[in-house]
Parts: sequence; C-alpha cells; structure tokens
Amino acid sequence: MDFRSDNVAGAAPDILQAVIDANAGTVTSYGADPYSERVEARLSEIFETPVKAFAVATGTACNALALSALTPPYGAVLCHEEAHIQLDECGAPELFTGGAKLVPLPGASGKVTPDGLRNMLEQTLTGDPHRVQPAALSLTQATEAGTCYRPAEIAALAEIARSRKMKVHMDGARFANAVAHLGVKPAETTWRAGVDVLSFGATKNGALGAEVVVFFDPALAEMFAVRRKRGGQLLSKMRFVSAQLEAYLKGDRWLELARHANAMATRLAQGLQRLPQVSLLHPVEANEIFIRLPQGVLAGLRAAGFNFYDWTDAAPGTIRLVLAFNTDPADVDAFIATATKLAAAAA
Amino acid sequence: MDFRSDNVAGAAPDILQAVIDANAGTVTSYGADPYSERVEARLSEIFETPVKAFAVATGTACNALALSALTPPYGAVLCHEEAHIQLDECGAPELFTGGAKLVPLPGASGKVTPDGLRNMLEQTLTGDPHRVQPAALSLTQATEAGTCYRPAEIAALAEIARSRKMKVHMDGARFANAVAHLGVKPAETTWRAGVDVLSFGATKNGALGAEVVVFFDPALAEMFAVRRKRGGQLLSKMRFVSAQLEAYLKGDRWLELARHANAMATRLAQGLQRLPQVSLLHPVEANEIFIRLPQGVLAGLRAAGFNFYDWTDAAPGTIRLVLAFNTDPADVDAFIATATKLAAAAA
Amino acid sequence: MDFRSDNVAGAAPDILQAVIDANAGTVTSYGADPYSERVEARLSEIFETPVKAFAVATGTACNALALSALTPPYGAVLCHEEAHIQLDECGAPELFTGGAKLVPLPGASGKVTPDGLRNMLEQTLTGDPHRVQPAALSLTQATEAGTCYRPAEIAALAEIARSRKMKVHMDGARFANAVAHLGVKPAETTWRAGVDVLSFGATKNGALGAEVVVFFDPALAEMFAVRRKRGGQLLSKMRFVSAQLEAYLKGDRWLELARHANAMATRLAQGLQRLPQVSLLHPVEANEIFIRLPQGVLAGLRAAGFNFYDWTDAAPGTIRLVLAFNTDPADVDAFIATATKLAAAAA
Amino acid sequence: MDFRSDNVAGAAPDILQAVIDANAGTVTSYGADPYSERVEARLSEIFETPVKAFAVATGTACNALALSALTPPYGAVLCHEEAHIQLDECGAPELFTGGAKLVPLPGASGKVTPDGLRNMLEQTLTGDPHRVQPAALSLTQATEAGTCYRPAEIAALAEIARSRKMKVHMDGARFANAVAHLGVKPAETTWRAGVDVLSFGATKNGALGAEVVVFFDPALAEMFAVRRKRGGQLLSKMRFVSAQLEAYLKGDRWLELARHANAMATRLAQGLQRLPQVSLLHPVEANEIFIRLPQGVLAGLRAAGFNFYDWTDAAPGTIRLVLAFNTDPADVDAFIATATKLAAAAA
Repeated sequence: MDFRSDNVAGAAPDILQAVIDANAGTVTSYGADPYSERVEARLSEIFETPVKAFAVATGTACNALALSALTPPYGAVLCHEEAHIQLDECGAPELFTGGAKLVPLPGASGKVTPDGLRNMLEQTLTGDPHRVQPAALSLTQATEAGTCYRPAEIAALAEIARSRKMKVHMDGARFANAVAHLGVKPAETTWRAGVDVLSFGATKNGALGAEVVVFFDPALAEMFAVRRKRGGQLLSKMRFVSAQLEAYLKGDRWLELARHANAMATRLAQGLQRLPQVSLLHPVEANEIFIRLPQGVLAGLRAAGFNFYDWTDAAPGTIRLVLAFNTDPADVDAFIATATKLAAAAA
Repeated sequence: MDFRSDNVAGAAPDILQAVIDANAGTVTSYGADPYSERVEARLSEIFETPVKAFAVATGTACNALALSALTPPYGAVLCHEEAHIQLDECGAPELFTGGAKLVPLPGASGKVTPDGLRNMLEQTLTGDPHRVQPAALSLTQATEAGTCYRPAEIAALAEIARSRKMKVHMDGARFANAVAHLGVKPAETTWRAGVDVLSFGATKNGALGAEVVVFFDPALAEMFAVRRKRGGQLLSKMRFVSAQLEAYLKGDRWLELARHANAMATRLAQGLQRLPQVSLLHPVEANEIFIRLPQGVLAGLRAAGFNFYDWTDAAPGTIRLVLAFNTDPADVDAFIATATKLAAAAA
Repeated sequence: MDFRSDNVAGAAPDILQAVIDANAGTVTSYGADPYSERVEARLSEIFETPVKAFAVATGTACNALALSALTPPYGAVLCHEEAHIQLDECGAPELFTGGAKLVPLPGASGKVTPDGLRNMLEQTLTGDPHRVQPAALSLTQATEAGTCYRPAEIAALAEIARSRKMKVHMDGARFANAVAHLGVKPAETTWRAGVDVLSFGATKNGALGAEVVVFFDPALAEMFAVRRKRGGQLLSKMRFVSAQLEAYLKGDRWLELARHANAMATRLAQGLQRLPQVSLLHPVEANEIFIRLPQGVLAGLRAAGFNFYDWTDAAPGTIRLVLAFNTDPADVDAFIATATKLAAAAA
Repeated sequence: MDFRSDNVAGAAPDILQAVIDANAGTVTSYGADPYSERVEARLSEIFETPVKAFAVATGTACNALALSALTPPYGAVLCHEEAHIQLDECGAPELFTGGAKLVPLPGASGKVTPDGLRNMLEQTLTGDPHRVQPAALSLTQATEAGTCYRPAEIAALAEIARSRKMKVHMDGARFANAVAHLGVKPAETTWRAGVDVLSFGATKNGALGAEVVVFFDPALAEMFAVRRKRGGQLLSKMRFVSAQLEAYLKGDRWLELARHANAMATRLAQGLQRLPQVSLLHPVEANEIFIRLPQGVLAGLRAAGFNFYDWTDAAPGTIRLVLAFNTDPADVDAFIATATKLAAAAA
C-alpha cells in the first residue's frame, strides 16, 4: 500500500504490450521510425493543430530541453517558487539552457498569479544589460500542489508574458490529470490559452519511461532535433519509447488512466477530511493530496504498512499522498479505515 | 535484410522478458531500487573489483556524463579523430562538460597511437593559461573502425595519460563485441589497463535502451548521482532500465549476444573477400565491416532488398555493414550469394 | 554634483600616475610582470598571510570567476536576495560557473542571517540528486544596502557554511569602505572569519578599472590562471591594471580614499536626517545612503542640478546617494542646504 | 631589444594622453558615455556604413563574445587549425558560446582555403542531428602566420559560408596591420567581402587595453549589450577604454602605428634573408616574422641581449619575431648586424 509517488507504480498493461509488440523486425533508428511519426500525428489530432513532437526518456530532460528552445543563455525563466524545474531538477534547466536564470514567483497553492508575474517583470526593463532578460514563463499543469490552472488563468498569465515577448512553457508531467479534472479540450488549456510548448508526461500515468515535447509553434521546433541529440535524449531504438506514447494516446486511454488516479485522490481526501484535526493544504484536484494529520495517526498508518512521504516543506505532520493510474480502491479504503480507527483511539 | 546498424534491431527476448517481469508491484523510484543494486553488484563481479554503476538511457548521455566527471570545463578530452564523441554526438560532450574541448588525434583503423598522444601532449604545458588543460583520454572499444585495442595497447596509452595526471575513459558502446573478440577478462581491457570509467553499452547488443556508466575508481563517482539527475538521465521508473541490464549481464549472456554478431561479421567479410575488386578498409574484429565493392554490385544488392549505408567518409563505393546479436545467418549467406552472382555477371 | 554612483567618478591622481609611470620599456605580457608580482606580495602583507592574487578588469568578472573556483556546475551559491551577483550581473555567475544556481536568502539591510542560511540548508540534504548542492556562500562587504558585516557576523555565517563543506566568497567591490568603517584589520573580516576568496575592488574607490581576486587558500587557486584566461580576463598588457592596484594598495592609500567617501556619506546623511519627513532605509556605514525624501524636495534638488538615482526597489520617493573617494565636501553641503531650503518652503 | 610580442610594448603616447584627459569630471558609467558614442560614430565613418560597436578589455573576450552572437551552442565555428581562438584562448570561445565546437581547417600560411572549407561543410548536412551545425566561419586578419587575406580571398570564403547560412567573423587582433599592408579601404576587407562581425584590436598596436566588437549587421547586435555585461566585459568606467579607442581611431593614427610595425618587420626580414641557411616560413606581410636560423646564431643573439620566442610548432631553430608600433629601427638594425656577424663567424 504505497502512496509515495505515482512513480513507484509500474506500467499499464496495454502500454507494456505496445513495447512488446514493437519488438518486431528492423526499424530505422534515432527516431526516424513510423511509431514516432504516428505519435506526432496523434498529438496533432488531440490538440486540433499541427504540432511538432519529440519523445524523450525523462521528465527532467523534457522540461530542460523545452526551455532551452525558449530562452537564450542570458534569459530568465519565470516560474512558481515551488516549481519542479526550480526545486527538484538539480539545475537541469540551467545546464540545458546554457545558464539561464530561473526566477521564482510566489502564489498560493502552486499557482503563479498575474500580480506576481507583473511585479517581477516591472523590475527588469527589456535590454537593461545589468539584468537577465525575461524570456519564458513556465507553468506546471497540474501544479506541484495538486491543483489545476483554469484556461482563463493560463490565458491571463500568457497574455502578460506575451506583452513582453516572452514564450510560455507548460510542465505537464501530470497534464493528463489536469485535463481529466478540468474536463476541457487539451487545446483550451494549452495553445489556445497561449502556451507555446508543452512537456507532456506519460511516465507518471502508466508508461515505463516516455515523455514528449510538444511544440504548438513549429518555428520554435526548427533545431530541436539537434538539441535533443545534443542533450543525450535521442534514443537509438526510439521505437520503444514512441510505442509507449502511441498506446498512451490511443483514444482516451491517457485520460482514463488519469481519471482513475484523480478519483482515487478525491476518494481518499474525502475519507480523511471526515477525521478530526485534519487539514488539507490545497484543494485536491489532480492525483495528489497534501494533508496534515496528527502524528499518532501517521505513526499508526506507517506501522500498519502504509507508505508515504513527509512533506518537509510544510508544518510537521504534513504528508503527501499520491494516487496512481492503478491504485486499488481497496487500498484507499483501507487507508481511510485505518486512519479513522487510529483517530478514534486517540480521541 | 537490414545491415544498416545494430540499432535497427529490436531487443533480445530474454531482455524484453526482464522488462515484463519488472512490471510487478511498487518499487522505489529514481534508481533506489533492487534492480539497480543488483546491476552494480553484478558489474563488480564481472570486473573483479567493486565498481560504482549508473544506468542511463542513451549512449550519448553515457559518454558525455562520464566525461563530465573526468574533465573540468577548461580541460581537453583527447580522442581519436573519428571518435563517436567527436563526430557523432552533436556536441553533447561539450554540453555536459560545460565546454571542455575535444582534441582529435590521428591513428590508423580507429586507434589512438602512443606517438599521436605524446605529440599532442607536448604542445601543451600543464598550467599554461593559454591552452586548454589535457584532462582525459577517451578510447573507443571496439573502435569506430570495428577494430579492438589489445590490453597492452590500452595500457601503453593510459600510462602516457597518467603521466600527465589525465583520466582515462572508455567508450564501450560495443564493449561486449570487443571482449568477445579479444577473449580476455573484462578487467584486463579496462581498469587493469588503466581505464577509470567505462561507458558500457547494452542497447546495440540486444537491450531496448540501456547503458551504464561504470566507475572503477569510486572517488570519481562521488557526485555522479547528482550529475546524472542534472543531465536528465535519472529515470523515475529506473527499474525498467536496470532490469534490462540485469538480464544482459546474467552469466555470459552479453558475451553470447556479441559473439553471434561478431561471428556474423566474420562470416560476411570472409564471403565478400573472395570476390574480385573488393577491399576491406579495416580488419574485421567486432561486428562492423567497412568494405569497398564495385558500384554495380552495390546497386544490385540494393535492388535485391539489402539495406546498408554508404560510408561517405571514405572513397566512393565504400559501405558499412553492421551485424547484430540477432542477425540471421541465412541473411548473411544471401548477401554473399547475391554479391557473388552480381560480381560474376559484371566480370 | 553627481551622486549617482561611485562609478561616475574618475581615477585618483596617484593611481593614474602609476599607469603613466608603467608605460616604460617592454614588459612580459599576460600577467607575468613585476607589477603583478608586487601586488600579490603587498596583498600578502595587508592580509598577514600568503595569498594568491589575480587582477581582472571588472567587478562582475571578479565575482563570477571567483565563484567558478568554488562551486561545481551542479552547485548552489547562497547569497543575499539583493546581492549584486544575484540581481545586477546579468547571469555572469551562471555563465562562469557553468550553470550553478544562485539561491537568494532574506535578511534586513542587505545582510544574510544565520537563521536564513540554516533554513535554506536544511531543505537540501548533501548528495540528494534532486537538488543542487550547496557549494558556496557569498557575502557582500560592504553590503548592497551600504551596511557592514561585523567580523563575528561573518564568522558565524562562515561556520555554518563550513559545517556543510561549503566555501565562502566575499564580494568586496566596496571592501575598502567596509574596512575603513569597521576599523579592523583586513584579515579579521576575511580569512580569520572564514572567508576563502575575496573579490577586492578598486575601481569604485579610485582606480580606472582594476579588481583583484584574492585567494586565502592557495589550493583553491591552483587552476585559476587558466580560468582567468578562459574568462577573457587575462589582459595582455596586465602591467597597466596591476600598476593601478599597486598604487591603490600603497600604504593606507586604499583606506584613505574609502574614509573620505564614508565621511562624505555620514556628513550628507546627518545633514538630511535633520529634515522633516525623511527616513533612512538602512544605517549609513559605508559610502551609500538609501533615503526617502518628499517628492517635492527631490524634484527641487534635481532642478538645482543634483544628479542621483531613484531606488525603485523601495517606496516612491526613495533615492540612493553614493559618495566617492573624491566627492567635494562643498557639494555635500550644497545638497544639504538646498534640500533644507526646499523642505522649509514646502512646510 | 625585445621581439617577443607586440604585447610587451607599452602604449602610444597619444593614447595614454587620451586616458589622462578622460579623467575629468563625472561621466555616466557602464558604457553610456560620450566617449563610447564617439567611437561608434568614428567606426561608422571608417567602415563607411553604420556599425554597432562594443568596447571590451581583451582580445580573447572580443573574439569569444563576438562568436557567441553568431553561433548557437549546438553550432560549429570553422576556423584555421592554427587560429588563436582554436589554440591560444584556452577554450574561451567554448565558454562564451555555451559549448559550440571549433572545427579546425587546414591551409598554408595561416589561411583557410575554399576547398578546405567546402570539404568540411560537405561532411555535415544541415539539420543532421548527429553533427554540430556549421554556424560561423572565423578568419584571422592578419593571420596567425603574419599573412593577409586579400579581399577577394575573403569574399570567396564568405560566399561559401553564406551559402550555408553561416555568419562570418573576423579576428582582427592585428586588423590595422592587415589594412596597412593591403592598402585597401577597411570596408573592402570586411563587410563588403561578407564579414558580419569584426573583433577590432587596438592593444597590440598601441593601446593599453582596448578592443572593440564591430557589428556590420545591426540585427546581430541586438542583445550584445547584455552578452557583454554577462561576459564580465562591461567596464564601469568604460570611458577609460573608449578614450583609448577614440585616440587610436583619430584620423589615420591606427594605420600609422601599424605601418611602422609592418615596415620594421619588412626591414628585419629583408636583413635576415641575406644570411645563409635562413628560411622564412611565411611571406612577411604584417608585423610578424617566422624564420629559421642556425642554432648558433640564435644562441649568439640571445647572448647579445636580443629577446624572442622559439616557435615550437615548427622545426627546431624556428623563431617568431614580432615588431611593434614603437620598435626602434636601431634595434632592428642591431639585430641584423649581430646575426650577420654571428653567421659569418660560423661560416
């Protein structure tokens, strides 16, 4: 009963089967294969616009490479102060962009706000040689707090960015969870709202290891094939990555997997909120729960075999629970039941 | 009948099966998993010394990251002028090392020579601020010409490098093919000969996408986990990469696969050498053949459905043939028979 | 009557004379000259310990190069959120360090606090591959707020840094002003307090263009000559930079120049504080004043020919006044008199 | 009697005087000063086209920064194999460009040839992700061999470069010497021949430390002010650098200084060529002589107090003699007389 991360889960059976099926015959290497072509075509369908798509192996590379196409080395990438690119990628964006500067912005529940963005931009005049030049805004969807930007929120932020000729990147490691929660068309929360490039994740949502950089503006993608190779992300047997993406994007499969994870999160959050002395840090919209529970309850849950991480950036007693595409509802119910029992015993 | 590259082949069935088997239960993400631990232990057995091992997804990243641990940004990496890191990795070593300079050395059949190395080193005094500082020597084993360094050749080069306090890297994208050809213990062609770090490839020899950086000197590996993450190569579901390596390294499986590829290369080369007007560019030691054939024969082979690349760095009529772990001997024999027939018709 | 910056002033006559005198005969180029040797020797005297010294042309390069010797590219440089390296050097530290991350710390009046430093360090475990590794602490002396760290304050911060094996850098663009204010020995506010490397500025305090990186730990300086060249800071006719430094460091000349600037700042601040509706943002310790005055007074001062910058990072009406080594006391008194008259007229 | 380099000379009196004169009053810092404006205007006159000009302190920074505006990090800079940027700048171009790759080209007497350039370009298809993308051609004028490209030679090379959408850089550390030798208008050997950016040197030819990046295409200069700051080359008291350039470029002063150095080189070369067993490596066109003399003559010259460098890249007995803007003809004649006497004694 492991609620540590959606990364501790394995792969969805149909995605694994696609890898097995891809192991037939010889196929042109280094991404010039029919699997990769079909992924690009399918993404163009999903987003209702012709996109350029580049599969890679990790989310960190997906973000860092995408950003490298949006900012010069003397540029600034503005992002939420808790953004994964800022806190948890060990400087990969700095490496891949040649030393661009990440500028953290405040905002409740993981969301950048128009005021926060404007305030920062006012501090830097375009062309002032003493300051890095704002070049890109990066938004995480769903956010690191498990919340989701509404299309209008994205559009408002993107408009400010565009008024300064900045590009807009979306870290969509949990993009499927956001779209599933919002119930909008993928285009509405991306290019129609002003997003130029999306790091579209599959790994957390059922793939073995597959992410894809999606360019809504083909001009930005012009030399991206070169950047991907230079960044060590052009897999020679790319078919095995693209086959995962193909299965993931087939019909609504990616949303189906995300809906399950989201539903499990909602179920668990609702169950836990009935307990006394419990507080949610953020609304539960995607598949993550940030919640504070009494220390005794936490200890009891761990003793009972439930596995989860303390969320050390918040007050003691705060934990993060992540639900996956394959979380068993019975495990969720067992978590709630055990916590309820422990809370009652403590009362 | 595809002889373009060992990368156009799929995966060995047992390696794919290991991936399937790894898809069970939840596993700690980001490389802190038992699969990765076992790979490190098995590599320590194979190399008869405790090693530090870091799995990654691509050969380019494997080389570039390894080099980043060996050279400061103001350093020089000396390598053969036809080295993959010099010609075919699109500047990835420059990116990952922060701008170190690759210095190409001449040498027949893909091999750096002691004289070539010494000549270059004499041009740069240690500490001369006008010149990049020789920091690492990178040798490819098997070489880009399909030949293999003997342990004594490596030792002679490594000794020169060490006399200048340089580190020694081995690009082992086809390491298995070299060990299989040489019939030596893996230790003899690596750390016992003075190699500090090996980029040990599995992808070309039957994996889906799995390479591993092997440090023979643990001190050099101290912060490598950080570099791997920053380089976008710490896969969240690393078990799927490490499981491939585990299967690959089980018993002599990696050598078995390489022996087959090498045997196919020998068989094909011997068959073609019997034809008139044919010349081999390099001795065929691993699984690659560089050979010049009459243009009419080449055209006929292509018309008959054989697929291979022109080798444009050499005289017209030169092609590269690469044999894989799963090349069908019947395809090899068909190639020879067709070429023989075509040559006879032309005579 | 120009109070915009100490950079708008020219050069002290004796420093200019040293440049003139240095223009005699031929001298070995690229820093291997007797001027540079004497500067290193004199700095060793001043700091009462053998130092390694490397002259450069700009303060930005002085800081960025110094930091490049202290942090790996995957490292973090912790500094005050208003530090010059963080806000006003356009990403130069990121360029020269190969992409290290600057992590801003809060603190009143431009000073990093032990709590602020500890809080940040607690968020990053050594070796955690997801986070950049704290590698250096950079303190500005005098600070960007015109205040000065006491030796004990530096020692307390350096001790925390050292407990995490971090190195300590001091941005001393106005080091002379700090030492002049504190009245301590230079060693006390640097290496005896735990500083490893000092960016010792001369330009703001009377040189034409001369700064020097001073290493208190020779081991850290080992390859710095190479870094300086690679960073474009090894002047071919270095004698003209070193001659400036030699004159600057002769006897107490550097302190004399700073004492004048500091005294002018104190005189001006004291004069202005007597006015109504005036508030100082920070104690005036070095040669900078951050002060809020009524808008009418500011407009009147400007109309009367006084030149100074609005300080846009603070409330409207806040200005920065910088006093120089050669500020005329009469100009200071004229400023006070004019402001007093304007304030009286407005009352 | 020092013939080691033009860098061992001091400054021309009028250039030094300009520095002295510039030390008057307060002046806006960081390059927004009238001196810098006048330099840009004067360069526009000299080159008969509106240019953008950015003064810097060193030749290495001048080249590396200029290249950083011409190549993406995944680009290749093609240059002669003996180019200063390739051999003697310690990887500065790699640092400032974010890791672009320098690709050395062969060619007699320091000159890139059309065939050499075309051969290299044929090896790399545009957009091939495995290879760095040719982005810039860098030519040195006068070359590292002391020779000068004719305008038609430059035009022929630039045309090939432009056919691949590459930009053309000229390393003009000794640009004045080249223009003085060729007797052409500055425009003819730069933008009219296809050069986009010139690193125009003054230091070797009489300045204390001043070089200037000259953009013939203003679009390329758009963010160069930012790059210069980030590269640590925006001097706060820039007036002292720009004042040097202003004096240097006044009337024909820069050519006058170069003509003297060139004349001294011709005089010395002609004198030495009369000796037996002497061979010139390259035609003497600018102010450098590469010449082979009998070892006994060299030893005798050194014993007599003449100072010069062995040229270790060539056969033993080869030396480099560099003549400066202020070389005393008597020293040249003394060198010839002493060598002649020594040669006679040995015969």
